Amino acid sequence: MKIKIESPQVLLSEGEGFAVRPADIYIEEDKIISVGEKVTDFVPDRTIDGTDKLVIPGLINMHTHNYMTVFRNLADDVSFNEWLFERVMPREDKMTPEDAYLGATLGIMEMLRSGTTCFNDMQMHIHQTTKAAVDAGIRASIGRGLSGDADEEGGEMRIRQALEEMEAWKDEPLLTFTMAPHAPYTCTGKYMQKAAAIAREKNVPLHIHLSESTFEVENMKKEQGMSPIAYADSLGLLDQPVIIAHCVKVDDEDIRLLAKPTVSVVTNPASNMKLGNGFAPIPKMLEAGVNVCIGTDGAASNNALNLFREMGLVTLIHKGAMGDAESVSAVQALKMATENAAKALGRADSLGRIAKGYQADLAILDLNAPQMMPRNNIVSSLTYSANGSEVETVIVRGEIVMENRRFTRIDEEWVRSEVRRREV
Amino acid sequence: MKIKIESPQVLLSEGEGFAVRPADIYIEEDKIISVGEKVTDFVPDRTIDGTDKLVIPGLINMHTHNYMTVFRNLADDVSFNEWLFERVMPREDKMTPEDAYLGATLGIMEMLRSGTTCFNDMQMHIHQTTKAAVDAGIRASIGRGLSGDADEEGGEMRIRQALEEMEAWKDEPLLTFTMAPHAPYTCTGKYMQKAAAIAREKNVPLHIHLSESTFEVENMKKEQGMSPIAYADSLGLLDQPVIIAHCVKVDDEDIRLLAKPTVSVVTNPASNMKLGNGFAPIPKMLEAGVNVCIGTDGAASNNALNLFREMGLVTLIHKGAMGDAESVSAVQALKMATENAAKALGRADSLGRIAKGYQADLAILDLNAPQMMPRNNIVSSLTYSANGSEVETVIVRGEIVMENRRFTRIDEEWVRSEVRRREV
Repeated sequence: MKIKIESPQVLLSEGEGFAVRPADIYIEEDKIISVGEKVTDFVPDRTIDGTDKLVIPGLINMHTHNYMTVFRNLADDVSFNEWLFERVMPREDKMTPEDAYLGATLGIMEMLRSGTTCFNDMQMHIHQTTKAAVDAGIRASIGRGLSGDADEEGGEMRIRQALEEMEAWKDEPLLTFTMAPHAPYTCTGKYMQKAAAIAREKNVPLHIHLSESTFEVENMKKEQGMSPIAYADSLGLLDQPVIIAHCVKVDDEDIRLLAKPTVSVVTNPASNMKLGNGFAPIPKMLEAGVNVCIGTDGAASNNALNLFREMGLVTLIHKGAMGDAESVSAVQALKMATENAAKALGRADSLGRIAKGYQADLAILDLNAPQMMPRNNIVSSLTYSANGSEVETVIVRGEIVMENRRFTRIDEEWVRSEVRRREV
Repeated sequence: MKIKIESPQVLLSEGEGFAVRPADIYIEEDKIISVGEKVTDFVPDRTIDGTDKLVIPGLINMHTHNYMTVFRNLADDVSFNEWLFERVMPREDKMTPEDAYLGATLGIMEMLRSGTTCFNDMQMHIHQTTKAAVDAGIRASIGRGLSGDADEEGGEMRIRQALEEMEAWKDEPLLTFTMAPHAPYTCTGKYMQKAAAIAREKNVPLHIHLSESTFEVENMKKEQGMSPIAYADSLGLLDQPVIIAHCVKVDDEDIRLLAKPTVSVVTNPASNMKLGNGFAPIPKMLEAGVNVCIGTDGAASNNALNLFREMGLVTLIHKGAMGDAESVSAVQALKMATENAAKALGRADSLGRIAKGYQADLAILDLNAPQMMPRNNIVSSLTYSANGSEVETVIVRGEIVMENRRFTRIDEEWVRSEVRRREV
């Protein structure tokens, strides 16, 4: 398939920042083959009119549990313990693989509608989020959530499932994988090291939760005499590619460890606030050179899967918490949701920017939405004014998966009726 | 005009909270004449199908400077001083009445699109925001921003303009007015007292900015030996209906004063964070019984005019700042944007809820938007999941002013071309 997007405004990476310029975009098969430079003898199968449109790299949601979308708004304004043990876990226990597929598909709908073309997921039901992503045509990085101990039946079973899933989908170009030990409070050190060894062997990143709450950090200090970050480092987990969600309750020494070139941190501002965990020290991490990405976390703790909202939050809340209007800029937020995420996935050379040779993962926005006018500063408008609903059309691997807000692959009617059947 | 909305889900005020129930809504002229109870011999001019729709009271944006919408994204990630003195003021000085009308109209487009049916505005160009509101069919509470001294030419001129504007539009049912002394750092005490006396005489609320920044509070303590809130109280300003924007930097004694039954506080979470001023102590104010409302502030400091975003922020940021997942609930946020606002405007008996005899100011939302599924808790979904783009149709005073996201009165093409002509 050949697609030409004619003279839209385009968000281009330029040095440490971005530039917005009009340019034709040429797409062939899965790739962008030219931005701005005329391709001779290019006969597009589809031409998209770029008038009053903005093309941005598809956003990358670096931490979510997509199957949980069916739990949205089940437990709000309650403590973390009530949320987890009384509301979410009892539902999770009763969840079927079909529920997980449905939840993942609903989450994908919301992500595509708000310009996300790739997500990094930790899940419990193998083959479900994977299949949902492939069916919908969205890119995903998938990890089977691991918990337990090495040589313990449950723990070993979960590792086998992770490997079985990787093997089953290894030829699917939309998918990559992670090894995903849940957290040090649900995994033994030996088990996490086993997962890490497999990750090295399979050449995939680790994906883990660390230092989300004060409770977790204090417990770890009691049990191991060190912070969760220091503990993970002591096990060697930070010396290979690792994607760490949360990092809310971290100190300066933790941040020094997080600045290792193998580490990426995923901040989840809405989820961290909603569960009363607070604000991660993102300004300090940025200053220390940490590769910071953004995630939504699951819909049960957010309760949206919209990276525009998270980009707005990450710029605003740190300005508020630091009392500093110059803290965390729009440019930094956009990098988190694009280039930094691509780097975390080991795909800096193929994802996260609009450039020749990169994957054609794009979102096309309507610049005539009232909140996008006037066009005084389009980069700013993406974090401070946009809400995600400006996204009209989404392309993943060169395929149009949403056009004028209609999904080309997902059967919305089916999703709606199945979701309604499961409402509480 | 008679309108019937057939069996939508309806957000109903119930005690301290809300209930969501299916109900037919009957509208005649400017009023809701029945909710749920069949009206015999009612022949509607228009019937709206409520299937998979949610009807909520139109939201009320209690603090904005709507003409400033043309300054959106002009100055981001910069200090307050650079924002105000180097970026905004030079543009404001060159602004024409036509620019102000255009900015107000653009702001109204964004507000209607996100379900706002009424806004409380402080402006500089009389007859412009007023005319824009009436032309668009949105409800507004208008105050000419006042600054200066009593018996000083500029100050007196601005008061005369405020009175001239009130007089000119006194028969327009969409409009009410305020007297709007800008702030104690731009008005003398005597001048604010003069404005307050006129407000009492005209039976309109005061609208003022207080305690937005540490700088302001510290200066006031140096100059008057007390906080801006205490100073305003010492002048008697808190003993008549008064709408106070910001109140970020307030202490316990200030909060005691703000709990007076004549006072309403408007929190502007995005603006307060964006300018580095921080988080207003909203949980403490709610506990003290302060009537808290929400505003967007102007688009130059937000940079959106979307109350769904502000409702989401007011619930999330205080949970984050307090480390308490139970702080500021979805119900409280919705009250701020509806009933509390109506009370602040002296309209608790006619605005802010869906009930028989109330004004027909309504927003109709699409419950099939992915982020609104599943319908586990619709009240929660309005603050935690919705982004405002779910709003399809808006009714103000019984008139459909937006239908399926198309404005019935505003000429979008005209706005767009005029805005584009003025871009930097």
